[in-house]
Amino acid sequence: MVRRSGRRPGNQDTKQSILESARKVFAERGFDKASNRAIAGEAQVDPALVHHYFGTKDELFLAALELPVDPRKLIGPAVAGPVEQAAERFLDVFLTVWDDPDIRPSLLAVARGIMDPAANRLLSEGVLPVVIEPIGVALGIDRPAERMPLVASQVIGLILMRYVLVVEPLASMPRDRVIATYAPTIQRYLTGDLP
Amino acid sequence: MVRRSGRRPGNQDTKQSILESARKVFAERGFDKASNRAIAGEAQVDPALVHHYFGTKDELFLAALELPVDPRKLIGPAVAGPVEQAAERFLDVFLTVWDDPDIRPSLLAVARGIMDPAANRLLSEGVLPVVIEPIGVALGIDRPAERMPLVASQVIGLILMRYVLVVEPLASMPRDRVIATYAPTIQRYLTGDLP
Repeated sequence: MVRRSGRRPGNQDTKQSILESARKVFAERGFDKASNRAIAGEAQVDPALVHHYFGTKDELFLAALELPVDPRKLIGPAVAGPVEQAAERFLDVFLTVWDDPDIRPSLLAVARGIMDPAANRLLSEGVLPVVIEPIGVALGIDRPAERMPLVASQVIGLILMRYVLVVEPLASMPRDRVIATYAPTIQRYLTGDLP
Repeated sequence: MVRRSGRRPGNQDTKQSILESARKVFAERGFDKASNRAIAGEAQVDPALVHHYFGTKDELFLAALELPVDPRKLIGPAVAGPVEQAAERFLDVFLTVWDDPDIRPSLLAVARGIMDPAANRLLSEGVLPVVIEPIGVALGIDRPAERMPLVASQVIGLILMRYVLVVEPLASMPRDRVIATYAPTIQRYLTGDLP
């Protein structure tokens, strides 16, 4: 049973409490096993409230990540145009967001949470299907569930070297050169011949 | 002055104590600022002993990483043959080591240490110049200090997805398919046209 005694008054407090509980339960159990009921229990609220405030589990997950930008809004520019240049557009949008000094700190916090081996199912069950694979689906590429993890394997390595570990020459490389360096790799993973 | 009161008897104890101190000092100060003197002080031994047991700082660093395999011995097979197939040979050697269940746990520990943002200079100052760039130098490629970090950015992403976070389909992908998937990327970073 859900204890109601600890339920906090006020929408903002309740929403914040649900988000904190969601982060905890997602990290501990992974995306698939994190139930609405468990998150509500952790936050000491009625499960109906979780749904009321955040809708589906995908939407709650995105809200709990507290991304400074909604990744679903970034899909548009990456998808608008010929699929043969999708990698360039994707990297352009991606670097615009990551290179913004106002946005980067919160993205770094998210990246560290995702790369934490203790919370490893967040990437495989949450970020890949909810955030990354929809880009492949929107692009209309074949086998997005196979191709997008390849894209992720290069993008994560780039994030780690350029932003998290600040390794040169990647850390100071002008964005146009980063795009020109990595676009052929990403484009092959998106639409090229793969074994 | 180095305190000698705490110096332990016996070579193995001393060597172990130096390695533990080296790991601590490398992680705290980064590779460049970790001095022989600081490591000896931390281990409470004479600085001459550090040199006596481990030689150069590069060699001490490699010893402190406690890699289950000496990366310098893996360079041979990767280098032996035409440079146009170097990526395939490199990935072959690399996956043979990582896919070995006896070796993987200690490699995972090293990988987590390197990817820890709190010890970020270990990669840029230690692993890249001491372990990774020599492969490029041995291959005789141009601009190894620019190209090898690109190789590292893809290899680290692959390690993270396949071994640390165990993300499918990469985690269960047969090694030949991993090689065929990633060899074109690595080969372009090694010898291809770059911006």
